[in-house]
Amino acid sequence: MNGYSEEITLEGHIIDSGILSKVWGTVMDLGGEFDLQEIRVGRSKNETSFARMKISAASDAQLRRILGALQDDGAEIVSRGNVRTEPAPMDGALPDDFYSTTHFPTQVRLDGRWVDVSRTEMDLVIVVDRAQSAARMVPMADVRQGELVVVGHEGIRVLPPQRSRSRELFSFMGSEVSSEKPKQLVIEEIAAQMRETRTHDGKILVVAGPAIVHSGAGPYLARLIRAGFVQALFGGNAIATHDVESALLGTSLGVALHNGEAVEGGHRHHMIAINKIRRAGGLRAAVEQGILHEGIMYECIRRNAELVLAGSVRDDGPLPDVITDVIEAQKRMRAVVQGKSASDSTSPRAGAPVEMALMIATMLHSIATGNMLPASVKVVAVDINPAVVTKLADRGTFQALGLVTDAELFMRELAEALQV
Amino acid sequence: MNGYSEEITLEGHIIDSGILSKVWGTVMDLGGEFDLQEIRVGRSKNETSFARMKISAASDAQLRRILGALQDDGAEIVSRGNVRTEPAPMDGALPDDFYSTTHFPTQVRLDGRWVDVSRTEMDLVIVVDRAQSAARMVPMADVRQGELVVVGHEGIRVLPPQRSRSRELFSFMGSEVSSEKPKQLVIEEIAAQMRETRTHDGKILVVAGPAIVHSGAGPYLARLIRAGFVQALFGGNAIATHDVESALLGTSLGVALHNGEAVEGGHRHHMIAINKIRRAGGLRAAVEQGILHEGIMYECIRRNAELVLAGSVRDDGPLPDVITDVIEAQKRMRAVVQGKSASDSTSPRAGAPVEMALMIATMLHSIATGNMLPASVKVVAVDINPAVVTKLADRGTFQALGLVTDAELFMRELAEALQV
Amino acid sequence: MNGYSEEITLEGHIIDSGILSKVWGTVMDLGGEFDLQEIRVGRSKNETSFARMKISAASDAQLRRILGALQDDGAEIVSRGNVRTEPAPMDGALPDDFYSTTHFPTQVRLDGRWVDVSRTEMDLVIVVDRAQSAARMVPMADVRQGELVVVGHEGIRVLPPQRSRSRELFSFMGSEVSSEKPKQLVIEEIAAQMRETRTHDGKILVVAGPAIVHSGAGPYLARLIRAGFVQALFGGNAIATHDVESALLGTSLGVALHNGEAVEGGHRHHMIAINKIRRAGGLRAAVEQGILHEGIMYECIRRNAELVLAGSVRDDGPLPDVITDVIEAQKRMRAVVQGKSASDSTSPRAGAPVEMALMIATMLHSIATGNMLPASVKVVAVDINPAVVTKLADRGTFQALGLVTDAELFMRELAEALQV
Amino acid sequence: MNGYSEEITLEGHIIDSGILSKVWGTVMDLGGEFDLQEIRVGRSKNETSFARMKISAASDAQLRRILGALQDDGAEIVSRGNVRTEPAPMDGALPDDFYSTTHFPTQVRLDGRWVDVSRTEMDLVIVVDRAQSAARMVPMADVRQGELVVVGHEGIRVLPPQRSRSRELFSFMGSEVSSEKPKQLVIEEIAAQMRETRTHDGKILVVAGPAIVHSGAGPYLARLIRAGFVQALFGGNAIATHDVESALLGTSLGVALHNGEAVEGGHRHHMIAINKIRRAGGLRAAVEQGILHEGIMYECIRRNAELVLAGSVRDDGPLPDVITDVIEAQKRMRAVVQGKSASDSTSPRAGAPVEMALMIATMLHSIATGNMLPASVKVVAVDINPAVVTKLADRGTFQALGLVTDAELFMRELAEALQV
Repeated sequence: MNGYSEEITLEGHIIDSGILSKVWGTVMDLGGEFDLQEIRVGRSKNETSFARMKISAASDAQLRRILGALQDDGAEIVSRGNVRTEPAPMDGALPDDFYSTTHFPTQVRLDGRWVDVSRTEMDLVIVVDRAQSAARMVPMADVRQGELVVVGHEGIRVLPPQRSRSRELFSFMGSEVSSEKPKQLVIEEIAAQMRETRTHDGKILVVAGPAIVHSGAGPYLARLIRAGFVQALFGGNAIATHDVESALLGTSLGVALHNGEAVEGGHRHHMIAINKIRRAGGLRAAVEQGILHEGIMYECIRRNAELVLAGSVRDDGPLPDVITDVIEAQKRMRAVVQGKSASDSTSPRAGAPVEMALMIATMLHSIATGNMLPASVKVVAVDINPAVVTKLADRGTFQALGLVTDAELFMRELAEALQV
Repeated sequence: MNGYSEEITLEGHIIDSGILSKVWGTVMDLGGEFDLQEIRVGRSKNETSFARMKISAASDAQLRRILGALQDDGAEIVSRGNVRTEPAPMDGALPDDFYSTTHFPTQVRLDGRWVDVSRTEMDLVIVVDRAQSAARMVPMADVRQGELVVVGHEGIRVLPPQRSRSRELFSFMGSEVSSEKPKQLVIEEIAAQMRETRTHDGKILVVAGPAIVHSGAGPYLARLIRAGFVQALFGGNAIATHDVESALLGTSLGVALHNGEAVEGGHRHHMIAINKIRRAGGLRAAVEQGILHEGIMYECIRRNAELVLAGSVRDDGPLPDVITDVIEAQKRMRAVVQGKSASDSTSPRAGAPVEMALMIATMLHSIATGNMLPASVKVVAVDINPAVVTKLADRGTFQALGLVTDAELFMRELAEALQV
Repeated sequence: MNGYSEEITLEGHIIDSGILSKVWGTVMDLGGEFDLQEIRVGRSKNETSFARMKISAASDAQLRRILGALQDDGAEIVSRGNVRTEPAPMDGALPDDFYSTTHFPTQVRLDGRWVDVSRTEMDLVIVVDRAQSAARMVPMADVRQGELVVVGHEGIRVLPPQRSRSRELFSFMGSEVSSEKPKQLVIEEIAAQMRETRTHDGKILVVAGPAIVHSGAGPYLARLIRAGFVQALFGGNAIATHDVESALLGTSLGVALHNGEAVEGGHRHHMIAINKIRRAGGLRAAVEQGILHEGIMYECIRRNAELVLAGSVRDDGPLPDVITDVIEAQKRMRAVVQGKSASDSTSPRAGAPVEMALMIATMLHSIATGNMLPASVKVVAVDINPAVVTKLADRGTFQALGLVTDAELFMRELAEALQV
Repeated sequence: MNGYSEEITLEGHIIDSGILSKVWGTVMDLGGEFDLQEIRVGRSKNETSFARMKISAASDAQLRRILGALQDDGAEIVSRGNVRTEPAPMDGALPDDFYSTTHFPTQVRLDGRWVDVSRTEMDLVIVVDRAQSAARMVPMADVRQGELVVVGHEGIRVLPPQRSRSRELFSFMGSEVSSEKPKQLVIEEIAAQMRETRTHDGKILVVAGPAIVHSGAGPYLARLIRAGFVQALFGGNAIATHDVESALLGTSLGVALHNGEAVEGGHRHHMIAINKIRRAGGLRAAVEQGILHEGIMYECIRRNAELVLAGSVRDDGPLPDVITDVIEAQKRMRAVVQGKSASDSTSPRAGAPVEMALMIATMLHSIATGNMLPASVKVVAVDINPAVVTKLADRGTFQALGLVTDAELFMRELAEALQV
């Protein structure tokens, strides 16, 4: 037995969720040892299990590394110290030993009491307000000098989801990404989940790429918005521009949407569309002036869906509504995800967090969004490129569903399943 | 001017089809020179053009090479010699200088008269029957010792298609393969073409991969067959096995098609399906014995569609109907394509050549089929992998249409567009 | 507790290999229940664990289904009955309740004694020779009427590999397929494994696609064969034809390999190559007649590597060496894999089973081969298409390694790492 | 003959470049008619050709559309009016009939004289300075109210490249994107072109994605920079962060680059890397403080390569050097491309335009850059995803070369070919 050791406990569906196996694997992979002190195994599918074990390592550094890894797996360190903090050395930078968050619900121990950390998001840090006994996750860039940042691993508890045995779509499909499964069934279950979410006034986010418009599927998305199935929409300059182009000129990138033929001079069309909106002063102004009267952007504005258009370095124009500073764009996206949009928002569900997210045919915006979503959000990722779907759906949770399929036909089938 | 020269002519829509540019490019690429003797350019879109030019090269061998290449572009050598032939040295082998065919209509000059070569297909050779003043294309393996095989380039005329300016789907889309075009429109035009073909009793061939069944799209294909939109079906052991598995056990590769869940023991199901058909004595016997009563295979048998199941080295079983010798399978496929199936065929259109071919989600069988199709057949290639579609649709003709999309959703939309 | 129950045991590294979790998951997924009777957990990474539990279900059929699934996970049914058999009803067909094999080592209980089943391969059946107390795996098509085929689940023991904790390449990489890992390192470890295998006279199989030749990597593969790193080669007509084309004409599909330019008339070249070999009477004859004096095929013949060229329906020609009957081709491949080639084989390692298999740039032949390989064979699958690699590497074992990379550059780097 | 007509002329290698065919095709596709007035065809490969024809249409609008399209093909309108301009109605917006540029060299006719338009780039507008008799291309967002913007089609001349017959790599490969060509040869020619460019002090730009670092190819790129083969580097936060991570911690995204294994806690590593650079005050400061002493960023800073890191909405951190405003980032990229960087630049070739661009494993930054490059720049696009390569290499020029291959092995081979 090595010289440095610590006791940990695990509790819940730790065996059928594979958490116990994972913990032991981690200890061994990192060169440590474990000694099982106590185990109580649930004897049926409804009973939970419990394990207590001593983890030992050859050095304190190694032990810390192991405990850090186990913590992300959901282990709790028995010696219940309080969480440690250090002040940020300057604006936008961190003490060296900062703790980096997962996208699972997390608690920190302040004065012997477990406190929930708000605003769950991956790869952030935890800032503690000792006066208020509160803690929140914050992006590195937003940390201000002197704020207390959580360091080390003690007094932190991560709560990964445990696999439910019930046969829900999202739990079942979660681990698989396939182009050979009956999509018709999957689409119907997505539709059912969307209907259920709309019924209880939940917030559905769509992250949408320009191929939706090019492929002629724009009207289906517009109908979803009109029917109240979309409360927030993230995208970029491209989808907005092509949507406007299709509304004003009937083309997308110069290709006529009613017959699929390239229109002469069509390469100018997206520039014309951008110019018209710039002259009007923006999308909302263009709607109010009667210039823009159909399409995805139009429906978002009419339904007061929360709309964030984030700039990218390949943008033409861009439209005045595009947020060209990407950090500013992240802030707005985060506010929508967390339900913390500005209080003057006209969006009916601005105060609610996102419950379900559909990411369709856009890698950039989908990954950006995916990084911000807590593991509890139901995610559907759709793309014709399997690599994109794998990246998006592989979130280490049981709530992400990847579909390798055609965005146009997916949107059409979804609209049909939702009868919009 | 080089020492070796020959005069050629070109006629037709040679400028707007790009044939004249191509010919000049070829001459220069191969190190030759051309001297334009005469050119008459059509002054409007209805007039054809004509060009006569002298091709010269530094050696006779080089000149032959150039003329050979120009011939495949549609040029005609002015010095109208007769075609030359040599006897095959042994069964299944050729004289060294054999002429290898294109998939364009071809003529050879016998005794001063241009004669059509029958059975157009790429990479075959031409065998001449001088007694009958006839010529036909033949695979290397089928040539018998002593048969007269065309050699060299003289007396051969290739007739490549010239681009029609009218806006037909197949001419328009031909050159492009895209995942960003409105597929809805394209599918409607494919449906229209299929309806038109059925109306005049044309023969439609479907080449189908097993993903059609896995993905739950089998019933759509079955309905197309039942409604008379498919007169011939090519596939392999896999699609037939999974179709039978779905008909008998409700699964495909062990995944239940009604809910997408893996069935325990499902990895045995395809073996069970194969075993049942083997015990029955084959697919037709299984239909007649009432064992098989729905699905793609069932409909083919009931509608007397010409069915060729070609074996591959990865086959399990296989089903008794699978032709395990691939050369034999090619012969049967070729007979169906050319409309030369055995006279005892029960298929109503066994005597007609294929007019339209849909290749869906199978690279192996599609390429095999594509190699056999004359350029005049309308080809639609559907796959989610762009590389496969590019290979299939890139046939140097204006009649191939590639769709990068989801086979399941494509089949569903096509069935809907055809109202079956 | 349900009415039908059976006791099972599990032993080994069942917790860190995740087998226990998997077993419990399976029971619950199939609607059964388990009651843990006894558990002994290894307290460190060297100790194995043991579990005994009662499985119960609502019906006998359900219980059988569950036990069948658990068996494939490595569970042993405690009530140690003997294996049951039924005679095959006809040649090439099976009794209905036949047991379908996995690619893991398997034992059957004959007269109270566990007997190893020879010729491990997936999706076969087990034929028992009671007189010899022997059992072997056999393809459905090879079963003869009256042979005793194993049915049901009793008296069968499957031995899945248990994850070793040691950091071997194949165990480590097994579960991942990535295009973003340092391939240089991986290639060096593959080379080390190949060197090690050559040192102890192990048999290495290469399954090779035609892109190896097109891309100019043919010479690297030829050098590997010459240097004794390849004892068996599987491929099709295409790789052999293009290899011959490159040896005789310096082109592959008509593209000159020394400068990448298309050669005029090049579309004839593969036909010329095939014709030359057909006239010679085959590849070995062509080598002996001095027609073929370099390349992959040449080296195979000179080194007496076991060569199997399996036909496919898209073949031109084909070469006389191609086995056009796919079932016959499977037999030859299986004999090479199992080390049971005909006794007159000139190959020095014809009597040894394959230890390591490299599958490069061919889906068809790789899947065919993969289906035949026991789980104990180390498999490396290389393709630029991630979907192909996933299919090949996803074998439910810890010995398959998938590389999404460029076959040409892979071969070059491998040849360099092996200093050939 | 239709009522509205105009005369155009075409001159140069218009037949072998296919320009004449294209022009006629365009006229017909757009419903117009042409009447050939005069044609002089070059009789050999060195003579140019000339054509004069009358274009007619049913309406003036249609005629304008046709003439606009022909202009982009290189046609010149005979009636040599001057270019027309209108003042911009407001900052960042355009008169409705603005002319949108191509990436070909362009001239406008001012007071009867043809004037070159500076700063060639696609999808911009032309602003005329009548006082100076000058014209330049400007992005929409940079147009100021009252500036004179070119409108309509008159007085504009586009000079598309005409295909040279000589067998250069870039002209030859230009039209093809393939994963089946000998890359070894292509890489050697790229290396030769880079050597040639370095010899005459030309400027080479690399646009680089993070997979270069993940895959372990970072050191090869670093060596290229050190050896003077890279004068400018465009990328994003990801490649810079992972490069710093690999320099400081030996990992990329937490995977150790020396053995490919995931390091425990590795998911924090990129955050640690960013934090270190933020605390240092930026990349240059980190180099000067001795914190960063190897890698891609280090070499760029030491060699004074022009470095532009453009932000994206998925960035963590970001590094202080990342330009978070995408329009600002575009400005800097454009300045580097055009050789108009700030006069205080320390980069030795800040004043020269880019001659050659390598785009490796990044779609976003490559497309952004591609949009800015005049057609005269030699472009090499490398990615393992064929769709990305197709998008990048399909620029309607003969100078773009697409390679579907593995970025890691490509970089390694390129470094070897350049002997760095």
